[in-house]
Amino acid sequence: METEIEKKRSVCENVISFEFVKVVLKGAGQVMFQNSAITGLLFFAGIFWGAYEEGQGVVAWGALVGVVVSTLTGYLLGLPCKDGSEGLWGFNGILVGCAMLTFLGNTVFTWLALIFCSAMTTWMRTGFNNALGKFKVNSFTFPFVFTTWLFVLASRAMQAMPPEFMSTPELPAIQFSSDINMGFGDLVVYWLKGISQVFLINSWVTGALFLIGLFLCNKWAAIWAGASSAIALFIILVFKGPGTDISNGLYGFSAVLTGIALGMVFYKVNWRSAIWAVIGVVATVFIQAAMNIFFTPLGLPTFTAPFCLATWLFFLPLFKFDVKSEELEDHSTWHGKKN
Amino acid sequence: METEIEKKRSVCENVISFEFVKVVLKGAGQVMFQNSAITGLLFFAGIFWGAYEEGQGVVAWGALVGVVVSTLTGYLLGLPCKDGSEGLWGFNGILVGCAMLTFLGNTVFTWLALIFCSAMTTWMRTGFNNALGKFKVNSFTFPFVFTTWLFVLASRAMQAMPPEFMSTPELPAIQFSSDINMGFGDLVVYWLKGISQVFLINSWVTGALFLIGLFLCNKWAAIWAGASSAIALFIILVFKGPGTDISNGLYGFSAVLTGIALGMVFYKVNWRSAIWAVIGVVATVFIQAAMNIFFTPLGLPTFTAPFCLATWLFFLPLFKFDVKSEELEDHSTWHGKKN
Amino acid sequence: METEIEKKRSVCENVISFEFVKVVLKGAGQVMFQNSAITGLLFFAGIFWGAYEEGQGVVAWGALVGVVVSTLTGYLLGLPCKDGSEGLWGFNGILVGCAMLTFLGNTVFTWLALIFCSAMTTWMRTGFNNALGKFKVNSFTFPFVFTTWLFVLASRAMQAMPPEFMSTPELPAIQFSSDINMGFGDLVVYWLKGISQVFLINSWVTGALFLIGLFLCNKWAAIWAGASSAIALFIILVFKGPGTDISNGLYGFSAVLTGIALGMVFYKVNWRSAIWAVIGVVATVFIQAAMNIFFTPLGLPTFTAPFCLATWLFFLPLFKFDVKSEELEDHSTWHGKKN
Repeated sequence: METEIEKKRSVCENVISFEFVKVVLKGAGQVMFQNSAITGLLFFAGIFWGAYEEGQGVVAWGALVGVVVSTLTGYLLGLPCKDGSEGLWGFNGILVGCAMLTFLGNTVFTWLALIFCSAMTTWMRTGFNNALGKFKVNSFTFPFVFTTWLFVLASRAMQAMPPEFMSTPELPAIQFSSDINMGFGDLVVYWLKGISQVFLINSWVTGALFLIGLFLCNKWAAIWAGASSAIALFIILVFKGPGTDISNGLYGFSAVLTGIALGMVFYKVNWRSAIWAVIGVVATVFIQAAMNIFFTPLGLPTFTAPFCLATWLFFLPLFKFDVKSEELEDHSTWHGKKN
Repeated sequence: METEIEKKRSVCENVISFEFVKVVLKGAGQVMFQNSAITGLLFFAGIFWGAYEEGQGVVAWGALVGVVVSTLTGYLLGLPCKDGSEGLWGFNGILVGCAMLTFLGNTVFTWLALIFCSAMTTWMRTGFNNALGKFKVNSFTFPFVFTTWLFVLASRAMQAMPPEFMSTPELPAIQFSSDINMGFGDLVVYWLKGISQVFLINSWVTGALFLIGLFLCNKWAAIWAGASSAIALFIILVFKGPGTDISNGLYGFSAVLTGIALGMVFYKVNWRSAIWAVIGVVATVFIQAAMNIFFTPLGLPTFTAPFCLATWLFFLPLFKFDVKSEELEDHSTWHGKKN
Repeated sequence: METEIEKKRSVCENVISFEFVKVVLKGAGQVMFQNSAITGLLFFAGIFWGAYEEGQGVVAWGALVGVVVSTLTGYLLGLPCKDGSEGLWGFNGILVGCAMLTFLGNTVFTWLALIFCSAMTTWMRTGFNNALGKFKVNSFTFPFVFTTWLFVLASRAMQAMPPEFMSTPELPAIQFSSDINMGFGDLVVYWLKGISQVFLINSWVTGALFLIGLFLCNKWAAIWAGASSAIALFIILVFKGPGTDISNGLYGFSAVLTGIALGMVFYKVNWRSAIWAVIGVVATVFIQAAMNIFFTPLGLPTFTAPFCLATWLFFLPLFKFDVKSEELEDHSTWHGKKN
């Protein structure tokens, strides 16, 4: 008769194995809610391409370390293996890796902090989900956002982990130009960069690889990612946002995640949920602008906080548009599609 | 046999009718917790008078659009009609209208944002009440405060919706003069402006109209509004606050709402609740000062957040001073007095 | 037959008595989770020594007034006497007293605000515990932190209560030197100051008195306080933090509280909880640095917020490392050791 502990071992014994590679890849996929190793593989391809294209290859390696560390932390803590095997321990860690090496100098201490921070996201996800579950919402990427905020803020007080690539803190002022090239090719580039920036990568090729990765798992995920980045681009152009941010896709990434979450992950795909998702995407653009201004005096990036905030605001009313029957009734968990 | 849907129609069919006008007026009244169309009519009179007196008539029209849009949104979303018919969908929207045209340039895009923002308050009220209900408190005017913060912050990044009348962001410094005229007539003006500023209007006539409106619905509401503005004025004068803010009534409006909420809406009028309300009003003055400083680097107005925060802090201990029997036991809902 | 009211009197009748002196002393002890009058006596000795050593004796008298006012407030409000008799009404008030006279000018109005603020902490503790209890965590010193933030922020807008000893608000910049003396004697001083700063006192003698006070109540409390201050000192030196802050013990005080809370108050002392506590202490150092930067544009001190935040983050996952059987199952209350 199998004991409780033996059962646990049999589920989790695949720590170092081909299975583990799949779990790590799924960690990448789950950033956009896809429980799929193939999707994750294409996401990693996009990250490596974009990082090396920008001359910042170290960002891709940070992503890899982040996802491995946060996944292993889940095993070490003995958290329920189901979450881990679906990549849900890894998606915050991979973003920590991308973010810390995008903004901080590449020192030994930055790497130590990256490892500590990635590990933290795993238990903070458990903690935040405990807390937010009371309101029937999930913590999404907020464990990544919150812990990375702490470490990049701290970097301004720690010379061993310098904030080399962060903006200079300044008071918000209106001095930006909103003039950017508006040719069709330019717009396509901005649109695809809006998708690549989900992983803090500034590359249209990466955006295209991400779209393909999504499509291989679920066509609706690809459709909502594409549509959301386009809607966000339209709104921020019409309201004359800052040109540099627009052309770098910085108004797209949060909107992409809001669109996928509202449009196809937590609601069934139908007209009513589609309208709700479009409204959510539009709201995300204003929230992105507001948070950009809010953090200007600290020179702090918003990361994907606008997505978290927008999605919480649109889930909290607990409206029902034919909630997926295979999902739980509340919005505090997801499991994506099996590959 | 009436079906569920027919019943719903019969309750809500009055969308475009004289009944709807009353609902819109009650939306104005509910800003100060009064379920009364007459009160709302006097509030609107005060808003129009004050807005045109300041040469900013557009603010009054913004208020009208805001309350209509947020009320209609409730019908469109099919929310429970009882709330709507008591004006509870409208009170956040009217404040959005006042605030956005007080602080932003009068452009087409500001109006589009105003409509979007007013509509948002209706489902954010549902969402925030779901969340805050766990702690037995209500969201009060926080849906207005939060969404309008997002849009006025965003305006600094959107040239089509310029932050024309907002303060310049600066680091907090002690450079203000606290010298103001202290004649009896001056003090009466500051006192009445403290009440008019609930709707962001800077006019003693408006303050007087608001007091009359309150008195017509419930004398205790008028008494607490008047007393709270006076107490707040006394405290901020004694602690030598900034002269310009005091003479414009900017230390009064949150205190007025705290006083009404604690003194007569959620507790029975008695000596114990009166003492509690006075302490709450005094706390609101310090919270107002603290939030004014907190937002200085962003040039962001506090709106009625000090009232929300103070009232939450004084409700969370769940003390009972003979809670009104006709009210729910918790503080998460109110229904005001029928007119 | 004893009535309900008589019973209440018999428990609480000791307001002005030797018993009351013990309750006030326990209020000091509970800042570091010790339900012990002897510990509290040594804490007071440390506070008076340190305050007069710095030429700021008024801080010690502020502490005394704060703990007395907040304790009396509990009796006046008729809160459950058990909490009061264990010093749980006083520990926020004593910190309010220390903090307000450390940062604000010594005026009549500062003292009035101190009394109001200390009293507020008692019902805010009830309120915050009601709210945070839903998540099975306690408010710790957050009532002190939150109310004192309000009053020291407000001081910048109130000339009668001037922010004389607060830092000037400025944008975060990297211009600090991390050079400090690193002799063994210097390190011991920094280490002990890290403990004395729990009460905002900058004195190694005070730190030593605090350690003795802890040891007299519970050896593990002294061990964890000492170990946590040492770990925090090591981490911030390795990551090259700002020299002045390090030598004044400003990276120690939050870590000390985190270490005691995680290491011996809420978990049984064992290897697993010890590892968890060490990780929590390391996280507290980064959180301290992050919050220092976050509040730079406001010139606002963090107080013990980094401890509250760290401990919440480490409690929210609700991990169990053989929770003390004599404690409640959740982390929302504590009762310390009887003396």
